Amino acid sequence: MGTRNPLNIGAAARALSNFGVQGLRVVTPYDPAFREARSAIGASDLLASAREFATVPEAVADCTLVVGTTAVRHRALHQPLRRLEEGARLIRKQLRSARVALLFGSEKFGLSNDSLSHCHWLMRIPTVERNISMNLGQAVAVTLYEIIRDAKAKSSAIKKEDQQLAKAAELERISSLLLETMRASGYLDRRRITDVEERMRRMVRRLRLPARDTEVWLGILRQILWKLCKSLPPQS
Amino acid sequence: MGTRNPLNIGAAARALSNFGVQGLRVVTPYDPAFREARSAIGASDLLASAREFATVPEAVADCTLVVGTTAVRHRALHQPLRRLEEGARLIRKQLRSARVALLFGSEKFGLSNDSLSHCHWLMRIPTVERNISMNLGQAVAVTLYEIIRDAKAKSSAIKKEDQQLAKAAELERISSLLLETMRASGYLDRRRITDVEERMRRMVRRLRLPARDTEVWLGILRQILWKLCKSLPPQS
Repeated sequence: MGTRNPLNIGAAARALSNFGVQGLRVVTPYDPAFREARSAIGASDLLASAREFATVPEAVADCTLVVGTTAVRHRALHQPLRRLEEGARLIRKQLRSARVALLFGSEKFGLSNDSLSHCHWLMRIPTVERNISMNLGQAVAVTLYEIIRDAKAKSSAIKKEDQQLAKAAELERISSLLLETMRASGYLDRRRITDVEERMRRMVRRLRLPARDTEVWLGILRQILWKLCKSLPPQS
Repeated sequence: MGTRNPLNIGAAARALSNFGVQGLRVVTPYDPAFREARSAIGASDLLASAREFATVPEAVADCTLVVGTTAVRHRALHQPLRRLEEGARLIRKQLRSARVALLFGSEKFGLSNDSLSHCHWLMRIPTVERNISMNLGQAVAVTLYEIIRDAKAKSSAIKKEDQQLAKAAELERISSLLLETMRASGYLDRRRITDVEERMRRMVRRLRLPARDTEVWLGILRQILWKLCKSLPPQS
């Protein structure tokens, strides 16, 4: 409400769109041209269909829960102030059965005390004390993200085969090929390493080598070894 | 990296500052004037001290975990792709002992395949399929928020006294005063309500009346009652 820069309304619309929220309501925007804001990338429909209201009570009339956002912590707040993590839980609960209004204030002054008085409670994003003032679009994005986030989200996108590690036999093949390569390269002639076999075996096992890469590693080592042996000077 | 609009670097710096993150590193910014971006509200120091690098490997050289952010889900991704909720858990764990790099790409094209290849794994913000492209500053803000958020955050800011509900005796005083007022107003003459006392008692108890407001409510009711009785016509 009272947003001055139309680009900020556009950016907020973009965040709504990113997190699948419909129904932007704008209270007394400073610039009536806000509907054309180019910052609403992928959200021009949402911005075009935004509803305009003259006052906060009109904008929130059909909502059963009205939550005001504020950066301020120590202003004499007359309403409960919740951190976003906790507030979002209550909002999610309410959303199952009813409409919830999230109020964001103007860039410069936030929400007025009059606007705040229409809220059931207030919510703040846990920014650091040194810089509590957030960009409007960023505040909208963070708030909506917290509401839609899924605490149990798993990395379903990681393919099973990508996680499978190389089997012991493969690791052993790589270990011995590596050792052979080290020998052929003269590495071991220049250094005295005790228990070099065991040491390399442990080093290879610390790599967490994926099964899918084993053949490539073996191929590389074989090629190096072949090249090394070919270029070795004839044994004297 | 490769960010074209200096305002976007400024907005990203502001998000870093909001969530207490130091050390912005910029790879080949398009506009060398980015350090003066006015969008870095409260973060001009952070922006001024941003380090510039020519390549991704140089920028992330001292990090033990490099995470690339991407909106894309179905591009042939050659690395594990994690949702932000899960990725942030791993990042928090790593941050206890080492430095982590979070890579964000340019507004238009995101991170190139070359840049992505420097990452241990990739992470995406759970946007809706219909509009996966986020504003850079908003993506930075959401990502950092998820990393610093506290799942156990409690509404410590809500004062104990604000949560205390009225005691039964107070509710009973209000109930009977309300009933008296209803009678005095003529409300009950105009309607036949069965069990009106019990009904009002239940209605008052559904209000979840805070203890701190009881005296004010009682005062209001008393005043109304007094005014009603004063203005009553003499009993005939």
